[in-house]
Amino acid sequence: MRPMRRVILLIIDGLGDRPSQSLKWLTPLQAAEIPNMDLMAAKGLLGMQYPIAPGVPPGSDSGHLSIFGYDLDKEYPGRGVFEALSEGVVGDGVIFRANFSTVREENGKLIVVDRRAGRVEKEDASLLASELKDLYLLNGEVKAKFVHTLEHRGFLILEGEGLSSLVTDVDPHEEGYYVLEPEPIDDKAVKTAEAVREFLLISYRMLKDHEVNRKRIAEGKLPANFILLRGASSPPKLEPFSSRWGFKPAAVAAGPMYKGIARALEFEVFHPPGATGLPDSDFSSKIRKALDLLEEFDFIYVHMKGTDVASHNKDPQQKVRVLERIDLALEPLTDPPEDLLVVITGDHATPCSLGKHSGDPVPVLFYGRGLPRDDSSNFHELDAQVGGLGWFTGSSMMRLILNYSDRALEYGLRPFPRPRGYIPRIEMLNPLKI
Amino acid sequence: MRPMRRVILLIIDGLGDRPSQSLKWLTPLQAAEIPNMDLMAAKGLLGMQYPIAPGVPPGSDSGHLSIFGYDLDKEYPGRGVFEALSEGVVGDGVIFRANFSTVREENGKLIVVDRRAGRVEKEDASLLASELKDLYLLNGEVKAKFVHTLEHRGFLILEGEGLSSLVTDVDPHEEGYYVLEPEPIDDKAVKTAEAVREFLLISYRMLKDHEVNRKRIAEGKLPANFILLRGASSPPKLEPFSSRWGFKPAAVAAGPMYKGIARALEFEVFHPPGATGLPDSDFSSKIRKALDLLEEFDFIYVHMKGTDVASHNKDPQQKVRVLERIDLALEPLTDPPEDLLVVITGDHATPCSLGKHSGDPVPVLFYGRGLPRDDSSNFHELDAQVGGLGWFTGSSMMRLILNYSDRALEYGLRPFPRPRGYIPRIEMLNPLKI
Repeated sequence: MRPMRRVILLIIDGLGDRPSQSLKWLTPLQAAEIPNMDLMAAKGLLGMQYPIAPGVPPGSDSGHLSIFGYDLDKEYPGRGVFEALSEGVVGDGVIFRANFSTVREENGKLIVVDRRAGRVEKEDASLLASELKDLYLLNGEVKAKFVHTLEHRGFLILEGEGLSSLVTDVDPHEEGYYVLEPEPIDDKAVKTAEAVREFLLISYRMLKDHEVNRKRIAEGKLPANFILLRGASSPPKLEPFSSRWGFKPAAVAAGPMYKGIARALEFEVFHPPGATGLPDSDFSSKIRKALDLLEEFDFIYVHMKGTDVASHNKDPQQKVRVLERIDLALEPLTDPPEDLLVVITGDHATPCSLGKHSGDPVPVLFYGRGLPRDDSSNFHELDAQVGGLGWFTGSSMMRLILNYSDRALEYGLRPFPRPRGYIPRIEMLNPLKI
Repeated sequence: MRPMRRVILLIIDGLGDRPSQSLKWLTPLQAAEIPNMDLMAAKGLLGMQYPIAPGVPPGSDSGHLSIFGYDLDKEYPGRGVFEALSEGVVGDGVIFRANFSTVREENGKLIVVDRRAGRVEKEDASLLASELKDLYLLNGEVKAKFVHTLEHRGFLILEGEGLSSLVTDVDPHEEGYYVLEPEPIDDKAVKTAEAVREFLLISYRMLKDHEVNRKRIAEGKLPANFILLRGASSPPKLEPFSSRWGFKPAAVAAGPMYKGIARALEFEVFHPPGATGLPDSDFSSKIRKALDLLEEFDFIYVHMKGTDVASHNKDPQQKVRVLERIDLALEPLTDPPEDLLVVITGDHATPCSLGKHSGDPVPVLFYGRGLPRDDSSNFHELDAQVGGLGWFTGSSMMRLILNYSDRALEYGLRPFPRPRGYIPRIEMLNPLKI
């Protein structure tokens, strides 16, 4: 049997950035002291990847799915379901991410004043949510369940015959804009759009004069008078990562969204002590856990969130500090087991100057024995632009990982009924009965 | 509401070239003194794009359409229609670009002697064209209208039931070659091919002994005895640029083809004084117009043709001079308004050594505040090959423009029934009716 490498895929959230004045026009990766990543860059291979496509800003869910080798055009179930999964909410119907928000009326239209209703407090939100627990829409044909989770956040689940997740967002994603009409994206979603519309009007009538909101207004707070919906989605029926790529996968993550994605792909999920999903997370604890898991698994996805938090805070100096703390934690990877491939990249760029995800390319580092050469010597955007992995999209990532972990099967070879392109583990094969 | 940048997209026709001996084996971009473009390259981002796909030479129409984000496989209507639009010819049937040409008979075949009939004079062409104004073909089932425009140029419009633009060119595109049989590309075009065949024979009979041609021959001129057809196409039903990408677009162009494309996409089209579509064009007048238009529009497409003319003339030194004159005109863009993104590229490469369009990559420059970094310092092919935009195809251009003008919407967000990927202008949204 061939020796095949095990893989650690480290996703540093929001990696990749633009120059910042406060860093003397360097990027955070350029400005940070990251000797371990630099050493891996010098010995390894760099490249640039667009997680979805050039110029397309990924969401955290879609960026990950694309990098994990799922075809977004065909397999993306919508965002709501990952958020719901991450909050432990599972529904069988159509799930929407929902925000308590503040709107005002103007000429028969609603304008979004605050998409989070001043981050409405738990007690107020719970009281308001209890009014919306079970509503029947379209003459009882559709049941609506609203689930409140944290602060202004919640989910709406619609259940009934003939529903579809192909409806547009009511949330305009910008304050000062109108609340939008829910529109069907195809004919099968007409009924769902009508149900959403009815839910919005009923809930608005219930919320706008509710005593909780009257009290909030009296106290000078923003009323939580509207439920903004977005990300309609259906529970995913995604092929498990293991049967798609032949790995036995584990995830090390703290952020709820990332655990939700990993669970949807049937990774075994670990949340080590000290990992918080924030800039102060114990990154070393995650790397130690990943190395331990190599005993039992051969693909370890490790997620580190702090960099993205710093970027959303528009704080390049914080991003530098987080990168430096991550780098310290990576020291054990610089001298890895002989059969380990280390891959470091991000699920999207989050330039600190924008404070949001962008469609910029993201640096990638492959590190392990016996890789091709390139001229790169530091792990930052400029060296990655001319690295030996070239430029590619996220949809190629798993193929490159199979290749550099010596698992890629020559095109046209078929140990499986469907083309999969990897060397199968022995237990995946179907032996001839004699 | 978010600040979003406005965009000037400058298409320098036939940009990108190969080394020339007369330029000491430099390319025209390398040999030219272009301090303004160099400054923008040093501060901005470079890359290489294949307008259609690696190795595929674009036509002026198809290169533009691809860069503007239209899927050529599904949306390309054929070339004739853009040429017709640019001449103000609009037809409902199948439109062919048509040339008065000179042919001679040899063994019952026709050989093309001059594809332009010695660039036949206007008066002669008009007289001949009047004979061909309305012909009925296939027992009256198909009506043929020939429209003469300038010199040897014109259009043939076929109208009738069951016609298709999927017929091959009669024009061999080379002198000394046979006139070609019109062939249907699929079954639905059989009738059209027959109608074309009949038109060619009838018109040839009418033209070859016409008194105008007898006079031309007597004067030692080439007779305009044949109508060469090419570029069969149907009127395009292209989605307007504004609804596809969310911009309010204007075009600054002088060449008829480019105005035709812009009109087909519902750009508002401006032809400033002094702009000629030739190497002597007043490039400054175009840039000043573009800057003025930023008051009213947020996407200005500026077309400059002179470089391509020099390339077709196989004159690298002329191309250098045109590039230097264009560069002078670009001075106001080097210190642009804070919210302006400047993009400079070509619709295809036209290497002077070939004198025709090629499938070579074309340099791209993005310039504005807050872009990512790269190591490029000059605007030429070699720096573009290792720039921070990487290598991409024209189909990614608009996504990259959305991204770097802060207009790209995160994947999965859906303010519209169909995914469009841009932040909509408020007037494009459909507010909830309450």
